[in-house]
Amino acid sequence: MIRVDALFELCEKLGIGFFCFHDRDIAPEGATLRETNVNLDRAVVHIQDHLKTSPVRLLWGTAALFSHPRFLHGAATSPNPDIFAYAAAQVKKQMEVTKELGGSNYVFWGGREGYETLLNTDSGLEQDNLARFFQMAVAYAKEIGFVGQLLIEPKAFEPTKHQYDFDAANSLAFLKSYGLDPYFKFNIEANHATLAGHTFQHELRYCRINGKLGSIDANQGDPMLGWDTDQFPTDAYQATLAMWEVIQNGGLAPGGLNFDAKVRRGSFAVDDLFIGHIAGMDSFALGLLAAAKLHTDGLLADFLARRYAGWREGIGREIVEGRADFCTLESYILDREPAPHISGRQEYLEMLITQAIAGCLA
Amino acid sequence: MIRVDALFELCEKLGIGFFCFHDRDIAPEGATLRETNVNLDRAVVHIQDHLKTSPVRLLWGTAALFSHPRFLHGAATSPNPDIFAYAAAQVKKQMEVTKELGGSNYVFWGGREGYETLLNTDSGLEQDNLARFFQMAVAYAKEIGFVGQLLIEPKAFEPTKHQYDFDAANSLAFLKSYGLDPYFKFNIEANHATLAGHTFQHELRYCRINGKLGSIDANQGDPMLGWDTDQFPTDAYQATLAMWEVIQNGGLAPGGLNFDAKVRRGSFAVDDLFIGHIAGMDSFALGLLAAAKLHTDGLLADFLARRYAGWREGIGREIVEGRADFCTLESYILDREPAPHISGRQEYLEMLITQAIAGCLA
Amino acid sequence: MIRVDALFELCEKLGIGFFCFHDRDIAPEGATLRETNVNLDRAVVHIQDHLKTSPVRLLWGTAALFSHPRFLHGAATSPNPDIFAYAAAQVKKQMEVTKELGGSNYVFWGGREGYETLLNTDSGLEQDNLARFFQMAVAYAKEIGFVGQLLIEPKAFEPTKHQYDFDAANSLAFLKSYGLDPYFKFNIEANHATLAGHTFQHELRYCRINGKLGSIDANQGDPMLGWDTDQFPTDAYQATLAMWEVIQNGGLAPGGLNFDAKVRRGSFAVDDLFIGHIAGMDSFALGLLAAAKLHTDGLLADFLARRYAGWREGIGREIVEGRADFCTLESYILDREPAPHISGRQEYLEMLITQAIAGCLA
Amino acid sequence: MIRVDALFELCEKLGIGFFCFHDRDIAPEGATLRETNVNLDRAVVHIQDHLKTSPVRLLWGTAALFSHPRFLHGAATSPNPDIFAYAAAQVKKQMEVTKELGGSNYVFWGGREGYETLLNTDSGLEQDNLARFFQMAVAYAKEIGFVGQLLIEPKAFEPTKHQYDFDAANSLAFLKSYGLDPYFKFNIEANHATLAGHTFQHELRYCRINGKLGSIDANQGDPMLGWDTDQFPTDAYQATLAMWEVIQNGGLAPGGLNFDAKVRRGSFAVDDLFIGHIAGMDSFALGLLAAAKLHTDGLLADFLARRYAGWREGIGREIVEGRADFCTLESYILDREPAPHISGRQEYLEMLITQAIAGCLA
Repeated sequence: MIRVDALFELCEKLGIGFFCFHDRDIAPEGATLRETNVNLDRAVVHIQDHLKTSPVRLLWGTAALFSHPRFLHGAATSPNPDIFAYAAAQVKKQMEVTKELGGSNYVFWGGREGYETLLNTDSGLEQDNLARFFQMAVAYAKEIGFVGQLLIEPKAFEPTKHQYDFDAANSLAFLKSYGLDPYFKFNIEANHATLAGHTFQHELRYCRINGKLGSIDANQGDPMLGWDTDQFPTDAYQATLAMWEVIQNGGLAPGGLNFDAKVRRGSFAVDDLFIGHIAGMDSFALGLLAAAKLHTDGLLADFLARRYAGWREGIGREIVEGRADFCTLESYILDREPAPHISGRQEYLEMLITQAIAGCLA
Repeated sequence: MIRVDALFELCEKLGIGFFCFHDRDIAPEGATLRETNVNLDRAVVHIQDHLKTSPVRLLWGTAALFSHPRFLHGAATSPNPDIFAYAAAQVKKQMEVTKELGGSNYVFWGGREGYETLLNTDSGLEQDNLARFFQMAVAYAKEIGFVGQLLIEPKAFEPTKHQYDFDAANSLAFLKSYGLDPYFKFNIEANHATLAGHTFQHELRYCRINGKLGSIDANQGDPMLGWDTDQFPTDAYQATLAMWEVIQNGGLAPGGLNFDAKVRRGSFAVDDLFIGHIAGMDSFALGLLAAAKLHTDGLLADFLARRYAGWREGIGREIVEGRADFCTLESYILDREPAPHISGRQEYLEMLITQAIAGCLA
Repeated sequence: MIRVDALFELCEKLGIGFFCFHDRDIAPEGATLRETNVNLDRAVVHIQDHLKTSPVRLLWGTAALFSHPRFLHGAATSPNPDIFAYAAAQVKKQMEVTKELGGSNYVFWGGREGYETLLNTDSGLEQDNLARFFQMAVAYAKEIGFVGQLLIEPKAFEPTKHQYDFDAANSLAFLKSYGLDPYFKFNIEANHATLAGHTFQHELRYCRINGKLGSIDANQGDPMLGWDTDQFPTDAYQATLAMWEVIQNGGLAPGGLNFDAKVRRGSFAVDDLFIGHIAGMDSFALGLLAAAKLHTDGLLADFLARRYAGWREGIGREIVEGRADFCTLESYILDREPAPHISGRQEYLEMLITQAIAGCLA
Repeated sequence: MIRVDALFELCEKLGIGFFCFHDRDIAPEGATLRETNVNLDRAVVHIQDHLKTSPVRLLWGTAALFSHPRFLHGAATSPNPDIFAYAAAQVKKQMEVTKELGGSNYVFWGGREGYETLLNTDSGLEQDNLARFFQMAVAYAKEIGFVGQLLIEPKAFEPTKHQYDFDAANSLAFLKSYGLDPYFKFNIEANHATLAGHTFQHELRYCRINGKLGSIDANQGDPMLGWDTDQFPTDAYQATLAMWEVIQNGGLAPGGLNFDAKVRRGSFAVDDLFIGHIAGMDSFALGLLAAAKLHTDGLLADFLARRYAGWREGIGREIVEGRADFCTLESYILDREPAPHISGRQEYLEMLITQAIAGCLA
């Protein structure tokens, strides 16, 4: 349970502008959902009081649909319709709360939406139900006038053996299959990306080129470990590549950077909580400086422009403009030696990143 | 290089009904694509001769767009437009050949369609180009009246660091983004599934519930190794779960089971090639027997029917039929204790699979 | 907390001959270790009462040196000497209890003996301390006349980022470095083997050929997941290959098979606990039947005999008998074409395993 | 095949002081090993000519016992004794050559020394044979007066499914089992470490505290990929942590840093080869600067000294000095509240590393 006072104190002391929370983080469950909602309302009043005087704002709200045993077989994808109803009512309430508190986004993380074994799972029905759930959420947001961005946060597995929102692409395929893609963007978490077998930058890039980069959970995992370690981010390379994508995306608003991170179990001193946040903020600040330097220097962009120059003229332009087909392309190439390649220069480009980082504090 | 005579001899001796081939498997490259096509035509005549007398048929054809250095930065996603043209002309030719030989499907495997590093890659342009390539392929198939199924074969990585067709869901998101999904199904390879962090059954299931299960590359990998080992399949569990999905799919036609497998380097004796195929066929035959037994016994289906019974009545039915929303669901659950869960019974269900396998040869 | 009555009831109803336990499984902590020991003694009396009438026996005892926050930086490898002392006293007590209860073995699992980050770790001192701890344990076992086998249970990671007993070989190197190897064997857990990047059979084989196969924790993991899932074993292949190694080892006494397994969270019904155990026992029973069949048929042994025949005569025998050196071998081979290889026949051998399993219930 | 002239030209232009080579890198095989040796001798003369005028020196030599099909079932662990003899004669020759050329070390990498499947492998005999091979190598080095350091280079797998020299600890256990440990140190390759589930730093640390850090293959892998990518190292964190261990080791002589790396396939331009080496050298130069700064600042060392202070007095000192046992430790702790922990401060320490790197080029 998070104490609201402590939350605001931490944010204000560290100069953190935004906070995020699960409904169950700030108030305990009651005997019924009705009682639980009353408990929640009480904590919300405390937040409202703080918001009157604090510069801190709510980045996003979300409902915890994973810890309680009622969700052990899923929430919107539970085989038990009562649990679907429970999850729906819980999201309804938390969406209201998020609106009330001026939240900029609402996040869905489906930690139990998946399966433990395909042997006991009707995946078709479960995915249809998940879509029904999101359709209801979209309708309800409209009904109450919640204009924040709806965000899905993909995760490959853990706690569930396999989650339907495995990665951004899996989630996009799902949204498109059910006509839901206009209403959602993604909240990308670094450690969730790596669990899915992708780099953090890959998931950010994938979202960016698909117009779906909504917000970021800025943590890091351990590439040797197969679970979500939720470490505070301290790797300047990851931060630089992430901020590079953010810059190319033209920023991230109304999303932001959230530390879905916890200090290591062994870092139990009070000041470790501050140090962890500082380490994370400094890393992303350094990453932003380095990415901005790369952007201003223009070496990466120039390299790309040269590498893809062929698409702005000749046969490349014909292809891009839709004036080529298999027959014209065959005529073009059948007796021709293809134009020579340009080296991909991976080593040189990686060196640029190190130079940008190592020169930042000069 | 595969000798056509030897290919048919192997198939006929082993009673294998279908074969598949890459264009470059059966004929060498010439100095230009025109000369290469002449070489290919010469080998195709040999195949046609065999087809006159042999019962063996062509399951699918495909073009090798990955080994030659011209594809080192991609084929349809090369930064070099000439390579796009080359790949287009190569697929055009091989699609004609596949049609000529009565092939039931045409497969696209994009081994070089991805990136080595995001630092040198314009992923947005590359994916647009890949879509343009597939649109041309669809148009050309229509133009020449090739009515076989077009298949995309996902693979997460190798040889490329990250491939655009990472898994079935990534590929489906791509197809839907470009309006290409009506024209393609997927060819699922067991070892490609596992490289993407999914079980073989997961990828088959995903395709099945999305109406995209086209064909199967029936091999197996080593779960301890991180590359495509292309082993002949010998695990009866994998085969049973795969054939379970095929049965639930109502079969696989016009697709089939292809061994994208090679005997281990240490299994170099002539008869190992036969033993490898026999081991693979026997495994899938055993898998089919076991899956059929599971299907006939009905225990798995009964369990699922009971587990999801709630969706056929009451609040579950209202949700499924679109008569519920967040407000009605809140009213329903706000003061109610949710109905109890039914155990997921994973251990029991896994035991059923072993029993089905172990009882098959009784 | 495990209730002693329930434990014996489960074992007796299922016909399980042995049980194992952590000291903290059966009795709660008190304010001091002295009080904790009193609590433990009380529970031990209950076990003794049961042992008088029950045929169930104690396979091994062990001390829980990992859950309590006092062990958050390690037990015998804590930077805090008081924790080393605490762990020593706890093992002392539990070794006494194990002796009192007639336990056949005593197990050390060092879940916190490793590091979270090398940056804060003096690995040299920590490993020296771990060795001191084991030396004291050996001395104390001798002192009290505990003649059960001492067992180390390797695990690569989890909860700790990296554990000193990573795998059997790491543990053996450690034991040999400190002269401790005569006093310990290994308790191999299937899922720990796979986390270390080895197959279950590999770890059993490694122990067998090094004379260190002591006991087995017979569970299974999920090869797609990177943590210890502790599933009841249901894969007949793993069970067969494990029992093959046990047979080649001439059995396992005084060790045995322990299910370090728990039913899935979704399998919450009372009978699931029984079904899980039955599934595990049936799998290993099937594995034993299949392995025995392979042993009796002799096909595997015959294949090995032929494959390694060269070492029983000629130059092979000279090498094995120590009568060759680099000079004599160079003379032998310098102008000679090496004898041809025999195929490794992996596909054939894998087929034998499937046949042994699938024919077992005939 | 590497041209000797080009090798020396590259080293001299780049100011690289040392080179390494496989016997088969510089000269082709003949019809017999005798002829092959003649070919090798011819290339060695070229090297000797260069050594007369060039400042470049030989860091180590090694024999390629993995590519040729004769090694498909192993070299020293082949089931075929003639292959053992062949490998022995090949190492004999290359050790002579290494001595002749003034090499400082001789490296053994057992890429084929392991198994593809345990089903066809007599692991006990194979490891005994491997030990015999090393014993002969030690004897022959003594016989010819080769005083360079013998090095074993561990690798977990690839090309073989599982290699006996899996990691440093596996190799150490092996050496100790056969009494070979006094004669060998390890050559640690970054990407081999990560394939074994360890960080690069872990393997260096393990070797360091066991007195076995001999030399380094300084490359890097891709944590998302499961094979040896042999990339030029460009990650300043890895380089810093590696050089930290080297500094703590008091240097590395007579070993050194070797780039077992190749430019990416897409980096095919002539200058990429230079850029790759420069990127690697700059990274390790930056890593050395950062590690030296960490060493000079003393913050890491101070933290460790405080964290482990308890071992220099009181009960800690008694344990370290061998004056404690289970009974004295029990008396000490039975009624005592253990001294409080000191926070492990992982986030703070990671921040120090970034600061050391980011401040280096100031």
